[in-house]
Amino acid sequence: MIEHFINETITYDGTQLSSLWAFRNFGWQGDSIVSFRGPCRVNLTEMVDLEDVRKDSPIYSTDMLHFIAEHFELDLEKTIFRQRLLIAIIKDVIENTADIKLLRSGDDLYYGEKKLSVSIATLSPVSSMIHTGLNITSKDVPVAAVGLVELGIAENQVAHLGEHICSLYTRECRDIRLARCKVRGVK
Amino acid sequence: MIEHFINETITYDGTQLSSLWAFRNFGWQGDSIVSFRGPCRVNLTEMVDLEDVRKDSPIYSTDMLHFIAEHFELDLEKTIFRQRLLIAIIKDVIENTADIKLLRSGDDLYYGEKKLSVSIATLSPVSSMIHTGLNITSKDVPVAAVGLVELGIAENQVAHLGEHICSLYTRECRDIRLARCKVRGVK
Amino acid sequence: MIEHFINETITYDGTQLSSLWAFRNFGWQGDSIVSFRGPCRVNLTEMVDLEDVRKDSPIYSTDMLHFIAEHFELDLEKTIFRQRLLIAIIKDVIENTADIKLLRSGDDLYYGEKKLSVSIATLSPVSSMIHTGLNITSKDVPVAAVGLVELGIAENQVAHLGEHICSLYTRECRDIRLARCKVRGVK
Amino acid sequence: MIEHFINETITYDGTQLSSLWAFRNFGWQGDSIVSFRGPCRVNLTEMVDLEDVRKDSPIYSTDMLHFIAEHFELDLEKTIFRQRLLIAIIKDVIENTADIKLLRSGDDLYYGEKKLSVSIATLSPVSSMIHTGLNITSKDVPVAAVGLVELGIAENQVAHLGEHICSLYTRECRDIRLARCKVRGVK
Amino acid sequence: MIEHFINETITYDGTQLSSLWAFRNFGWQGDSIVSFRGPCRVNLTEMVDLEDVRKDSPIYSTDMLHFIAEHFELDLEKTIFRQRLLIAIIKDVIENTADIKLLRSGDDLYYGEKKLSVSIATLSPVSSMIHTGLNITSKDVPVAAVGLVELGIAENQVAHLGEHICSLYTRECRDIRLARCKVRGVK
Amino acid sequence: MIEHFINETITYDGTQLSSLWAFRNFGWQGDSIVSFRGPCRVNLTEMVDLEDVRKDSPIYSTDMLHFIAEHFELDLEKTIFRQRLLIAIIKDVIENTADIKLLRSGDDLYYGEKKLSVSIATLSPVSSMIHTGLNITSKDVPVAAVGLVELGIAENQVAHLGEHICSLYTRECRDIRLARCKVRGVK
Repeated sequence: MIEHFINETITYDGTQLSSLWAFRNFGWQGDSIVSFRGPCRVNLTEMVDLEDVRKDSPIYSTDMLHFIAEHFELDLEKTIFRQRLLIAIIKDVIENTADIKLLRSGDDLYYGEKKLSVSIATLSPVSSMIHTGLNITSKDVPVAAVGLVELGIAENQVAHLGEHICSLYTRECRDIRLARCKVRGVK
Repeated sequence: MIEHFINETITYDGTQLSSLWAFRNFGWQGDSIVSFRGPCRVNLTEMVDLEDVRKDSPIYSTDMLHFIAEHFELDLEKTIFRQRLLIAIIKDVIENTADIKLLRSGDDLYYGEKKLSVSIATLSPVSSMIHTGLNITSKDVPVAAVGLVELGIAENQVAHLGEHICSLYTRECRDIRLARCKVRGVK
Repeated sequence: MIEHFINETITYDGTQLSSLWAFRNFGWQGDSIVSFRGPCRVNLTEMVDLEDVRKDSPIYSTDMLHFIAEHFELDLEKTIFRQRLLIAIIKDVIENTADIKLLRSGDDLYYGEKKLSVSIATLSPVSSMIHTGLNITSKDVPVAAVGLVELGIAENQVAHLGEHICSLYTRECRDIRLARCKVRGVK
Repeated sequence: MIEHFINETITYDGTQLSSLWAFRNFGWQGDSIVSFRGPCRVNLTEMVDLEDVRKDSPIYSTDMLHFIAEHFELDLEKTIFRQRLLIAIIKDVIENTADIKLLRSGDDLYYGEKKLSVSIATLSPVSSMIHTGLNITSKDVPVAAVGLVELGIAENQVAHLGEHICSLYTRECRDIRLARCKVRGVK
Repeated sequence: MIEHFINETITYDGTQLSSLWAFRNFGWQGDSIVSFRGPCRVNLTEMVDLEDVRKDSPIYSTDMLHFIAEHFELDLEKTIFRQRLLIAIIKDVIENTADIKLLRSGDDLYYGEKKLSVSIATLSPVSSMIHTGLNITSKDVPVAAVGLVELGIAENQVAHLGEHICSLYTRECRDIRLARCKVRGVK
Repeated sequence: MIEHFINETITYDGTQLSSLWAFRNFGWQGDSIVSFRGPCRVNLTEMVDLEDVRKDSPIYSTDMLHFIAEHFELDLEKTIFRQRLLIAIIKDVIENTADIKLLRSGDDLYYGEKKLSVSIATLSPVSSMIHTGLNITSKDVPVAAVGLVELGIAENQVAHLGEHICSLYTRECRDIRLARCKVRGVK
């Protein structure tokens, strides 16, 4: 599994959530998690979460830490388990980094009542994909929100945070594949 | 999905990790998570984790809070994702209940250097199964360990803790199944 | 699993056979079977059954009782088994309601030589889908056909018939999921 | 897919419901449905349906028409769909042969309140398997039952009935596999 | 499984690698391998192999023996195993026909340093698909290449070669399905 | 994926074809191919190929080069594709090493009429497994056979041959997994 932090500003507009985005753009081939920083502006027409479309809730944030994961398998339920585990990993990392307490509710992270994250998981024709974005600042976010900076994480720590999360997710996915290979069946 | 706390002492000896244990013994039919309290004594011949067998590490604890989950599907990797998420849920519940900080490392929970839990996931001929046990006391545990009581959880809270964890796991599994049903595919 | 009869006239033109149609339009989330009444006009460009396209047989009926089922899984063979069972359920209900004898041949229902139904099953990017339509009248149907009314079912029974079929299909799908959870494996 | 009626009396005692029974005993290799006639005596220790074990309901019939189907796939839910469709086929054939009306309730067939059939579906290590048995006579059956002979089917028609049902089931399974190969996907 | 050699010149431009191409155009329904002869001109916009797109390597050949295989299942890894086996079969047939020695490297065939073939495998919404093309002449091929004729295979043998390869592939796929049905499981 | 040649004589008696054999005995965890040298004596009771059991053909060879592959997935058809590709790889390696011509027929290798190999693929409760054995000498083999030594391969080359085949198989399996991750879907 491949992990990368991209050191350039990329606006997440939903088009990054398409199959082989990491391979097309960077040549990274295989299951991957890629992180980068940039604004988040997803129009209703690009939105994948039809619940948000139904509620007419476009996704917007001035500055986010993004994660795009791609796994070359077609089981959406398993992908959502992967997504929830990624959120649990992010929670642990931020709690430890900022010495605060967050709440995970499904695929959302909250600090008190304030939303820190957006996330979605879906299928492409050849793979399954996850997007997770963490507000860096809550400025202009259209819901009650909080950003990493407001939680006490310095701007210049953000890239490292992205790398660290990618690294832990990759390690856990590998570890889970390996854990299949040490148990006998039961009756 | 079915959830139950069994209000009687049951010794976990590994035979509970077999297909349809909840149905055979209690008539509970379907995907389930069941919790109970009791000692843990698994002989090498009953052990499912062959890594522990290779290391000659039998599992022993005087008093544990046990969870047995069964899902009627045959994808072991997905089951291990379920297991990791269950551990993440348990971590959140105990941290909030005892106002402490735990560390999750794969399917293990630690308080500092001390091990709080054991866990394994495997396949039966018709289902996949998870066992997780939390020490209630570390007394006589053959490794550096900690128990719920030593973390400040009262003996009489243990049953409620078991019920609450079953309830959160069940809710999350349901929520994940539902989350499959709101996204369009991407390119 | 969700079941609904929609109390408005909807023309089935093939666009209803697309992923999350029930969720996009009505907010019903999850595996579902939805029934409604309306004309059926599917142009060749919208047709999913390429056998009909090859034979240049557009589908047309003045008034039909429609069923749209969606299951969030990607096994087309299993979906066709579901479809055949739905047809078998419809056969039983109509035979009992009208006290007549129908013939099921694959996914088609006949009264003597006259065709009562059309049906197709296919995959979407995130789910599998079934459409089944029962002629209410055979008027203007371009093949030898029969309608529910001509079989003795009153116009004002049609909605109830739709509801009843949705209910039996939902019950059987649930019952089948449960039946997985009571058998031990064999050698 | 292979279909055979075995022209000898075989007592169904549950051991026939094991993988490759048709291949081991008759050399028939591949997905198959095999029919034969004989008593039915399944001890509790051999029973696969743990619901019956829980209810302490051994299965017994003096003379039955049996069907054993084996499909080399490991999806139990799909197998139960196959089983239900087999029961629907049997219902149609008997209704047409005896000019009567039966009731299918899940995997059971009834004539009024009287039970005509037993059936179970499960997994083996390499395949999925179905057993269905139809009472030829209700004599000594430990529940309110009816037999084919009492429905007006002559003793000497039973073998032909078995062959005909095998043939229709085989044809439908083949037809379903083929129906996967004529539809385009939808959005 | 269906096999056909089409006795007309067809230019392979990538549009043949789409679901149900054999059914739409020829009415052949089911898993299939179809062979024909014609030029190969695939523009970058039609290319499926994004590695070639990244390298800006369009595929071109004046005259090729083509194979299009379609299997109605959605496991891309299994399809690539099928593809590799098809290449191994082609290697054996050409080696025996021309009494030469080829090298298989993944999905490519070489005669010394010269490339004989192109091949790709991918998913459609309802099936998996393979294209393999063998140069008949290396004239104008944009890489170091060799053609069947240059290997000593006569022009008028090419159609027979295509038929023979289709036949061996079909036989091996059938044989593999059957080989599933003769083994007991192990511990 | 793990590859190893074991430098000790092991008699293959069928018990090596069981889940996690490489992990239990050598601690090698994960998908693997392991090679070793030793006699082959499989009693009918240990045989997995019921076709051989039906023919009463026990497997015997004085000295063989063995391969045991294990893949932690439960798709037997895919495993047989893997097996066939392994045989194709072995064919290429031996042809190139000994400068001879072999014939692959399914999972068998022949030199003229003489059989060089035995092979079987099956499922365990948690994985799929392949055994392939190549005669080193044909002495005492109960069918018309040939051994590697008689094909001109020196005794002291055998270990290297085993290593080389393991290495090529591992590389191809990895390459196939990677090839999934470079193609866009088609219509």
